[in-house]
Amino acid sequence: MSRIITISRQYGSGGRTIGRMVAEKLGIPCYDQEIITQIAEKSGFCEEYIREKGEYTNTGSNFFNAIGIGYLSGLSLQDKLWIEQEKVILELAEKGDCVIVGRCADFILQDKVECVKVFIHTSMKNRIDRILKYYNESEVPTEKSLEGKDKRRRAYYQYYTDVDWGIAKNYHLCLDSGELGVETCADIIANVYKSK
Amino acid sequence: MSRIITISRQYGSGGRTIGRMVAEKLGIPCYDQEIITQIAEKSGFCEEYIREKGEYTNTGSNFFNAIGIGYLSGLSLQDKLWIEQEKVILELAEKGDCVIVGRCADFILQDKVECVKVFIHTSMKNRIDRILKYYNESEVPTEKSLEGKDKRRRAYYQYYTDVDWGIAKNYHLCLDSGELGVETCADIIANVYKSK
Repeated sequence: MSRIITISRQYGSGGRTIGRMVAEKLGIPCYDQEIITQIAEKSGFCEEYIREKGEYTNTGSNFFNAIGIGYLSGLSLQDKLWIEQEKVILELAEKGDCVIVGRCADFILQDKVECVKVFIHTSMKNRIDRILKYYNESEVPTEKSLEGKDKRRRAYYQYYTDVDWGIAKNYHLCLDSGELGVETCADIIANVYKSK
Repeated sequence: MSRIITISRQYGSGGRTIGRMVAEKLGIPCYDQEIITQIAEKSGFCEEYIREKGEYTNTGSNFFNAIGIGYLSGLSLQDKLWIEQEKVILELAEKGDCVIVGRCADFILQDKVECVKVFIHTSMKNRIDRILKYYNESEVPTEKSLEGKDKRRRAYYQYYTDVDWGIAKNYHLCLDSGELGVETCADIIANVYKSK
């Protein structure tokens, strides 16, 4: 049975970088952008739509509007995307040991394969510093914009999993990447994986 | 300036054991029962009262009743205990590097000394198994009784700190002691402390 490391993360916390570092240390693949590409190929959704709607609710104050059009008349586009995303994640997990970043993989896989469930976070200041340094964004991030992203990611996660996002007890390891450093985080995760 | 490891934990998760193991690995003191003894000596509260009321709200459905008598007429006994507890924790932290288990030490110390803030948790099953194996309790623990303890500890923490207990982003490290093992948890914490 495959053993999978799932990495949930706050936007700007370096979770994706840590995922790649862990995968490299362990000699296993890390899936992140690949998931988006595969869903696009199989579903016809464009990559930009998948990137945004596969982890976030829409902006908007009304939750039923926020989660996607057509909610009251059957499956919304976002529901259909969820189903495709779930399929791709299950297929990747079946292929063998790997790291999967984001996209509720922790919830999708937890009862099906052996998982090390990780949550990566850090302070607003650290996230803003990291985004300014490494992300090629047109808009300057602010505490308010990041809080908005957290809120929409939490709402998406809760809607599809009925579980709170970012609650310590739902993960095996939660790490503050800014305080610990991304290299230390990657070492901790790789060592836990090897020792289990 | 002192460097302190604070260990918050779910009841039955082994946080106290991990605290002692970390302290031993690092050659620094671990304060747990010692805090209770010191508060008792300084305040006149009996140890049993401190053990219970220094981390839990009272049982009871009404929050204002739950937090302690005399709420509306000034400081409650529990408020007075909080003040004594805060004093003792600050004095211990000033003495030098140490591990402090529970009692909102993470919140009390976070802006005053350098802290590694840890939260230890694990599944209900693991907690019940651990309590049956190691704790000398007269009553058999159940999911319901542990949920009650979590609820009262969370309410206490939130009342005095205005911060959510058990939310990943409030700690540098959150570890599932049952999945990782107490020895691995202690290693991770000691290594993070040494590497910072």
